[in-house]
Amino acid sequence: MSRFKRVLIVGGTHGNEWTGAYLMRSGTFDALTQYSFDVVTLLANPRAVAANLRYIGRDLNRSFDRQRLNNDRLSHYEDQQAREIAQRFGADGDDPVDVIIDLHTTTADMGSTLILDDESPQALQLAAYLCAVDPSVKVYSTSRSGRRDGLRTIAPLGICIEVGPVVPGTLDAAAFGQTRSLVMQVLEFLDRVNQAEQSECATPLTLYRHLETIDYPRNQAGQPTAMIHPQLQRQNYQPLHPGDPIFIDFAGNMMAYAGAETVYPIFINEVAYYEKGIAFVLTQRQQVDCYGPTA
Amino acid sequence: MSRFKRVLIVGGTHGNEWTGAYLMRSGTFDALTQYSFDVVTLLANPRAVAANLRYIGRDLNRSFDRQRLNNDRLSHYEDQQAREIAQRFGADGDDPVDVIIDLHTTTADMGSTLILDDESPQALQLAAYLCAVDPSVKVYSTSRSGRRDGLRTIAPLGICIEVGPVVPGTLDAAAFGQTRSLVMQVLEFLDRVNQAEQSECATPLTLYRHLETIDYPRNQAGQPTAMIHPQLQRQNYQPLHPGDPIFIDFAGNMMAYAGAETVYPIFINEVAYYEKGIAFVLTQRQQVDCYGPTA
Repeated sequence: MSRFKRVLIVGGTHGNEWTGAYLMRSGTFDALTQYSFDVVTLLANPRAVAANLRYIGRDLNRSFDRQRLNNDRLSHYEDQQAREIAQRFGADGDDPVDVIIDLHTTTADMGSTLILDDESPQALQLAAYLCAVDPSVKVYSTSRSGRRDGLRTIAPLGICIEVGPVVPGTLDAAAFGQTRSLVMQVLEFLDRVNQAEQSECATPLTLYRHLETIDYPRNQAGQPTAMIHPQLQRQNYQPLHPGDPIFIDFAGNMMAYAGAETVYPIFINEVAYYEKGIAFVLTQRQQVDCYGPTA
Repeated sequence: MSRFKRVLIVGGTHGNEWTGAYLMRSGTFDALTQYSFDVVTLLANPRAVAANLRYIGRDLNRSFDRQRLNNDRLSHYEDQQAREIAQRFGADGDDPVDVIIDLHTTTADMGSTLILDDESPQALQLAAYLCAVDPSVKVYSTSRSGRRDGLRTIAPLGICIEVGPVVPGTLDAAAFGQTRSLVMQVLEFLDRVNQAEQSECATPLTLYRHLETIDYPRNQAGQPTAMIHPQLQRQNYQPLHPGDPIFIDFAGNMMAYAGAETVYPIFINEVAYYEKGIAFVLTQRQQVDCYGPTA
């Protein structure tokens, strides 16, 4: 297992997600010197933070695919910002990092989620460690989503910490504390890996693997013609069975889930996903075994 | 008691509060002909609704004080909109209404709140009626706040229905249904008044009377330096005693309520009030007796 030399903690990738932005502003992770690696921090989208908007021109956390990064003519603020960040912290950058921990919040009632883009042994071991320390942590694997455009993808090990529900443009002390704790646990894990303290015991790990996204029913103007059904609202990570209600229209008519198998919805009613055509994300709940440091 | 001839239901006064906007868009209150009065509806801030913003230039629901309305030189979109609405539905307007029901949502976990600007016998009787039908309804009286700049102030009887928590820019089926039910109950009450069906029995009514607003601690740049304390978050309408925690800063230090008496905070952590310098609103809980129609 590789040794970690530099770890980057990122907040404010989305400018209206204040948890990460204020963790950066308050210097919570500055001057951490007790680890076997350097910790650096970044407020990723300062202009969007100042404007209290998710983004200025385009979503920064959808701006890191390799084609975009290599295209100097793209002129959104976030394109420039993405190139700068990649040129500084990416593998070929001036100041490359081994790990990125990107801090996000969601309006969905998801509690604490660790998002993994791949299911490498190291990523799974980190996940198992966090779940052992705090069994309420959920692990969402996007390895089958096809998406590789997030800020965290420029590091060999990139993870996202997603805490909700939090209203964009607000501070939530519980989410702030949960996020800080999770970051400290990730740092602790990385340090144990560096110290080769990991044991060889197998840990069962529950993964919520990306399956597909479901959009709202919409009219020709693109406006939703139905709402998340009250029985689905707030039921992130709970089983959704074929025939269960998913939407209710303004006249009270129910629409049912038409899939063939039981799935586990997440990001239910996330505000920022209306414009992306996502009412919720369907996942499969699967158990894997992995080996790594014990909590 | 006066007879009601025209009742105006308003949504989209704040363009990102979708409950009211979609109740208007969906025509839920159109073609209501069963009452002893006419029902008319209004999407109050269509440009803000289209832009999914609370407002374009300034808060429409702070744009109805008489000096502003009489000043033709004020040129914000909302100033023009306020003048048009007042000239149409106000007492001296082309199409005056006797009652305005303005539909709002809050990010605070307040459930269903009826906001009254004055404590006239009629307003209190309406409140007592709604509370009798649904005991979870709370009544917030702003009569002592000094504010008379809301859209609803242009009608002899103006009320606000405020439901939360709802994230701006999202649809919430429960809030949608609650709001629709409350509107129907208000219409039912007004109809009973017109039909002179009210009994003379006294109803005890709990009022939460406006006392003052409390802002976040802030730095010189105006940024909050502390968050709502987790023990206060979501505790709308619950007693706050002298010495109880109200804020926690980013290092974990607690700040306590320094008032001399027990109060009842509402609008705790409402997103739109950060810019207004309001972390929460303090109220006094008081019992009054009023006479009116029984449920």
